[in-house]
Amino acid sequence: MIVVVAANPALDLTYTVDALRPGASHRVRAVTQRGGGKGVNVARVLSQLGHSTVVIGLAGGVAGHQLRADLDAAHLRHRLVPVPGETRRTVTVVAGGDATVFNEPGPVVDEVAWAALVEGAARALGDGATGLVCSGSLPPGAPADGYAALVRLARDRRIPVVVDAEGVPLLAAATAGADLAKPNAAELAATTGVTSHLQAARVLREAGAGAVAVSLGADGMLAVTGQGTWHACTPHRLAGNPTGAGDAAAAAFAVGMAGGQAWAGMLRHAVALSAAAVLAPVAGSVDVAAYHRLLPDVHVEETDAARLDR
Amino acid sequence: MIVVVAANPALDLTYTVDALRPGASHRVRAVTQRGGGKGVNVARVLSQLGHSTVVIGLAGGVAGHQLRADLDAAHLRHRLVPVPGETRRTVTVVAGGDATVFNEPGPVVDEVAWAALVEGAARALGDGATGLVCSGSLPPGAPADGYAALVRLARDRRIPVVVDAEGVPLLAAATAGADLAKPNAAELAATTGVTSHLQAARVLREAGAGAVAVSLGADGMLAVTGQGTWHACTPHRLAGNPTGAGDAAAAAFAVGMAGGQAWAGMLRHAVALSAAAVLAPVAGSVDVAAYHRLLPDVHVEETDAARLDR
Repeated sequence: MIVVVAANPALDLTYTVDALRPGASHRVRAVTQRGGGKGVNVARVLSQLGHSTVVIGLAGGVAGHQLRADLDAAHLRHRLVPVPGETRRTVTVVAGGDATVFNEPGPVVDEVAWAALVEGAARALGDGATGLVCSGSLPPGAPADGYAALVRLARDRRIPVVVDAEGVPLLAAATAGADLAKPNAAELAATTGVTSHLQAARVLREAGAGAVAVSLGADGMLAVTGQGTWHACTPHRLAGNPTGAGDAAAAAFAVGMAGGQAWAGMLRHAVALSAAAVLAPVAGSVDVAAYHRLLPDVHVEETDAARLDR
Repeated sequence: MIVVVAANPALDLTYTVDALRPGASHRVRAVTQRGGGKGVNVARVLSQLGHSTVVIGLAGGVAGHQLRADLDAAHLRHRLVPVPGETRRTVTVVAGGDATVFNEPGPVVDEVAWAALVEGAARALGDGATGLVCSGSLPPGAPADGYAALVRLARDRRIPVVVDAEGVPLLAAATAGADLAKPNAAELAATTGVTSHLQAARVLREAGAGAVAVSLGADGMLAVTGQGTWHACTPHRLAGNPTGAGDAAAAAFAVGMAGGQAWAGMLRHAVALSAAAVLAPVAGSVDVAAYHRLLPDVHVEETDAARLDR
């Protein structure tokens, strides 16, 4: 079972409109609503691939109730600590190929709620867990090093940890010895202040991260590890919805690390599963047939530049 | 007691953002959420002025539950028929002075639900009602002449009716003998196909409406009645939020007709209360002090052109 911490989950609303005209009134053609946020997306992908998972997080108010109901409907196990206030909603307005997103701030959590989340994660980790994924931003009020405590809990139990975050929470998780830090290129640069992916990854590894995988969008993914540095990409660019591609990659790494896979193989799976997420219409789902089809075609290469850089 | 039919009420979300950039991701700085739609706004204004009111409408799902809770919190009496599906939400994104609105379509109502709404209105009208306001669009699935049946119910009981709508629902209500049709200029033109306000008002009166009041935005209001035609406006243009100004006018007319006021006096109240709605930050509320301050300064004039046009 892979434990996924979704500290700041959301209720995602998607509105389809004909065209977005600022200052105008729009008739919404189609409305979809489902539980989301990066952690929930990771858990959905794990579940879609047949892996057992549990979502540990915080939820409040009517939106929190709708989130729980949606996770129940998707047969996703969860332990969501009730918090005062309303779970944040996101509204994505899709017009033509463009998506415009509005993110509510979400509830401010207090020490008691955060301690209950850590306690829930500890219990799940003690219950036969094979991996931990900490994914997404921390809610307002959570300690900036909140992921670090979770990393230490997992490490104490020799459970591999993937952290997909940015800024102080990511740096603190790296310092606590996260097995894999998995930011995207912008998050990695924002966290380290270094624009070279290789050098920035080295900063996180020197801080204490076992490895760093940087998603580069359509340019694939770079993994900087103690065993070597690899770059992987699909043979062709794929058109689709990139939201959730990074979450699919985090899911692939969690599965790979739980199974003791080598980095090059894990990277292949992560890139194929990311691509399969791009080909699926909504974040948090993957085109499983495309995943299996793309897997052998992913180009994985050990990079010389990285060897020099180590 | 004034009965307000809100056939297609909404849960209104307002998001404040720094600037609206299509295609970008936005941090929402402030979220407000409350029950809305034109009928609910009319009832709120009536209640704010100390008049007894009851909202008759349809509500479904989680958003319907939130709507009920919000009306309860505002001490607004309501009889909302439960319907399958979700009450529509509206999302208004406020950036600087601009508002961009997204309107969900709302649930499709069936004959049974509509009959229950009519039954609820009939009961409320038989319970000492002094006025009926039918305000806003009809939900998908409702009969296009849905307001006409309500107008007849009120007329049978000699209860004055204000209808604020457009298109076939407004025309059918006029034909059924609504005492006052209160569209804005665009709705009046769209309903009659006539751009001259006077001539368009005459079309509705010839159809059967007792009187027609057309709101002209910052240019005030025109009332075409059996007793004469008047134009009224505030002495100065007012800056503020015009959403809900027409609903405040409908409330003023309902109060005036219930009290047997003359048209010129009613128009004065309607214009002052509209202006007081512009000065209040959210739709469905009025600046009561401004209402009383503006009342004597509203300029009301019987129009010669209108006399010729009668």
